Amino acid sequence: MNKEITPRSKDYSQWYNDLVIKGGLADYSAVRGCMVIKPHGFALWENMREVLDGKFKETGHQNAYFPLLIPKNFFSREAEHVEGFAKECAVVTHYRLKNDKESGGLVVDPDAKLEEELIIRPTSETIIWDTYKSWIQSYRDLPLLINQWANVVRWEMRTRLFLRTAEFLWQEGHTAHATAEEAVAEARQMLEVYADFAENYMAMPVIRGVKSPSERFAGALDTYCIEALMQDGKALQAGTSHFLGQNFAKAFGVQFLNKDNQLDYVWATSWGVSTRLIGALVMAHSDDDGLILPPKIAPLQAVIVPIYKGPEQKSVIDEKALQIKNELQKAGIRVKYDQDDSARPGWKFAEYEMKGVPVRIVIGARDLEQNQVEVSRRDTREKIYLPLSELSKSIRSLLEDIQRQIFEKAKKYRDEHITRVDDFDTFEKVLDEKGGFIAAHWDGTPETENKIKELTKATIRCIPLNNPQEEGRCILTGNPSKERVLFARAY
Amino acid sequence: MNKEITPRSKDYSQWYNDLVIKGGLADYSAVRGCMVIKPHGFALWENMREVLDGKFKETGHQNAYFPLLIPKNFFSREAEHVEGFAKECAVVTHYRLKNDKESGGLVVDPDAKLEEELIIRPTSETIIWDTYKSWIQSYRDLPLLINQWANVVRWEMRTRLFLRTAEFLWQEGHTAHATAEEAVAEARQMLEVYADFAENYMAMPVIRGVKSPSERFAGALDTYCIEALMQDGKALQAGTSHFLGQNFAKAFGVQFLNKDNQLDYVWATSWGVSTRLIGALVMAHSDDDGLILPPKIAPLQAVIVPIYKGPEQKSVIDEKALQIKNELQKAGIRVKYDQDDSARPGWKFAEYEMKGVPVRIVIGARDLEQNQVEVSRRDTREKIYLPLSELSKSIRSLLEDIQRQIFEKAKKYRDEHITRVDDFDTFEKVLDEKGGFIAAHWDGTPETENKIKELTKATIRCIPLNNPQEEGRCILTGNPSKERVLFARAY
Repeated sequence: MNKEITPRSKDYSQWYNDLVIKGGLADYSAVRGCMVIKPHGFALWENMREVLDGKFKETGHQNAYFPLLIPKNFFSREAEHVEGFAKECAVVTHYRLKNDKESGGLVVDPDAKLEEELIIRPTSETIIWDTYKSWIQSYRDLPLLINQWANVVRWEMRTRLFLRTAEFLWQEGHTAHATAEEAVAEARQMLEVYADFAENYMAMPVIRGVKSPSERFAGALDTYCIEALMQDGKALQAGTSHFLGQNFAKAFGVQFLNKDNQLDYVWATSWGVSTRLIGALVMAHSDDDGLILPPKIAPLQAVIVPIYKGPEQKSVIDEKALQIKNELQKAGIRVKYDQDDSARPGWKFAEYEMKGVPVRIVIGARDLEQNQVEVSRRDTREKIYLPLSELSKSIRSLLEDIQRQIFEKAKKYRDEHITRVDDFDTFEKVLDEKGGFIAAHWDGTPETENKIKELTKATIRCIPLNNPQEEGRCILTGNPSKERVLFARAY
Repeated sequence: MNKEITPRSKDYSQWYNDLVIKGGLADYSAVRGCMVIKPHGFALWENMREVLDGKFKETGHQNAYFPLLIPKNFFSREAEHVEGFAKECAVVTHYRLKNDKESGGLVVDPDAKLEEELIIRPTSETIIWDTYKSWIQSYRDLPLLINQWANVVRWEMRTRLFLRTAEFLWQEGHTAHATAEEAVAEARQMLEVYADFAENYMAMPVIRGVKSPSERFAGALDTYCIEALMQDGKALQAGTSHFLGQNFAKAFGVQFLNKDNQLDYVWATSWGVSTRLIGALVMAHSDDDGLILPPKIAPLQAVIVPIYKGPEQKSVIDEKALQIKNELQKAGIRVKYDQDDSARPGWKFAEYEMKGVPVRIVIGARDLEQNQVEVSRRDTREKIYLPLSELSKSIRSLLEDIQRQIFEKAKKYRDEHITRVDDFDTFEKVLDEKGGFIAAHWDGTPETENKIKELTKATIRCIPLNNPQEEGRCILTGNPSKERVLFARAY
């Protein structure tokens, strides 16, 4: 057990922070609620971004970039959107500072007040739909399939590294379609892209579902989501995809001539995932020794650590290690040879375990004589000896196995933590003692949903797609219900 | 000549705007001074970013991400920096809006005033050096080689798409070193990376130099730069790399224990290029028909346009065209087959010329019979017929030739526009009639530099690296000078 890391059992929240900071993912900054993403964390984000970006392009989307600053009046245009977003946001009111003669410091120049305040984008529907107005005239301009990688700011009062920060990085897709059916299909397609990414790259099983009306994105007709389960039994919304109907087209006057030569409002979707996913990844797989990263997106997939006595052994091992490194690199494995003389092997082991490098290869003089290396996998801590011949092949299949097993482990935990519950006492008991998702009947009203939230802090995470229909009674009110929905306490 | 584009000879500035907007690179936005980067422009930026990012990583740099918002007091810490940057910037003063009961609109909530204003980063030295304080303790932590891809905001009063916008995208490298020599070497290495990128990818010849003291970055001891020449004879600063000395380390208290166990301040560099490079690219190569993009970074390197009569011919040509497309794609060429039925070939030709696609391949029934295609290169408008056998090989070498010739053409123009001048009358005459760089003697004082700028609008672009030393007299004052410097009017 790594002494720098608080054990999960002692303080889950502190464990998470220790992992993020000591694992080299992020750091607090001098600005309230804003974090610094450190090189290891950013390399992870780059790998995630590359996979997602590839999937967006495969499905026909193009990247573009829209302004960071949005005129205040844009937020008033869509009635629900303003309620959801315009309130807690960073407001730019001035465009100049000047020297203060009295204090010698800098003060805001009152002469440089903006005529209209600008808001740092909390999300970009408004500025993008204002732009689409000039890009869309006819059905020939549709569908318009655009994505943006950007930073956004939401003035959160209680922040946590990656999970909830004032500024975060994300991608936001904004698409325009000629029909409602096409827009819904797009929103569901992108949900599937997210789910595929979460499960097959992040090794994190997710439930695909749709939000209850009160949990919808502000301005959406439907919000699809993927929900993951963390090791403390709390759920985490890992991505959302919204069917926006014609709300934004109407708010910004975006009409098109359809095939029948009639003017109609455009149908919209938007969808996004953010650096929050890194927080989810940390909490889904890691242990008390540090991060556990799935090989497919780990910045470093393997590290080679030498063990030697004296410069003679060192030079023999160096040569062999560099040879192995080159062989692995050629096979497409992200590998590093740690030649640092100033740190001891034991320290290095702990360090790479903390950073979640999936495979550690130790090269010692005795092993070399036997044409083998000692290989440890991060997820199970298992040690094996692998022959030098065809090492890249065996490491590759080991990485695949790790990827698979991390997923299977998380899936087993998740599946064991979906509990069917039929009465409110059990509901509360399961929430407190077991955690996880609870599949329970709900009468479909926002009032009941709110009441349950007040009483238990649990929310409806989603109504799963293809949810089996089943007669039942709401766990709170006893009113009739047609299907179970998934409740959980959530991040 | 494309009728949608104003000819250069008529209005160079309007020509530039037409190219940017109609070539699909960018658009004005609803926010003063901020642009929308359209998909074609963003794809170009992505290609540029990918090459640069690869070069940064090859030279040992890692990416990270620092907060968008910087506390106001950070800017006061470095005396020159505050003069250079803190003045014209976007100031966040509040973190909430509320509904206005009278107007029904949104107003800034006076109760949500920040204790200290936050500035949207115009550049990140201050927030990064504040962070480095906790990352650097000993010489073992050095060098620290970090780069960030980010958006920044500088409140420019007169803006132009790409060349000068309030918000722009860039990368900023920020490195920390144990010695001055190492930091200078880093700054010069990164200048070389930029120069290599400009010349070998953007096909844009540049002069490597160092700025005169009054043109230095605010807070730098030396600013290295690459300077390019546009087709109207004006220079454009395409990238800068700064040796910052210990200024920021002192301002933010970043000390380290050196090998002799002594506390010392850290030495710094910073270096950046931005979306401004896209503006440079447009003005360096394009013509009155539209953009001319160098193949290495063009989003699309080749487009296939079919010419057919009737559905029978179409199906034969479609089949062949897709086959050719696949072959080219396999050879790593970015190619599109334009199957759009609704546009005529002539319209498509003009469109792809406007967008700067380097190679157009036209497939017609008669050519197919002869096992050949008609190929036009965008740069020279030359048409040739190429046999279908080994087409990918010939297209590839054609792309290489285009890349080379675009560079050669720009270099010839640039070299013809460096004029040695020894008196002030000729200096003014050359500026007005010929433009370009003027190599002239200067007495080395900021007073003379300013006076020349006032009189002619020409500035010292740089003192070239490895500048030949030569006795002479300042063109304005007649005072003695040891070397010629390069003057030009500039963007």
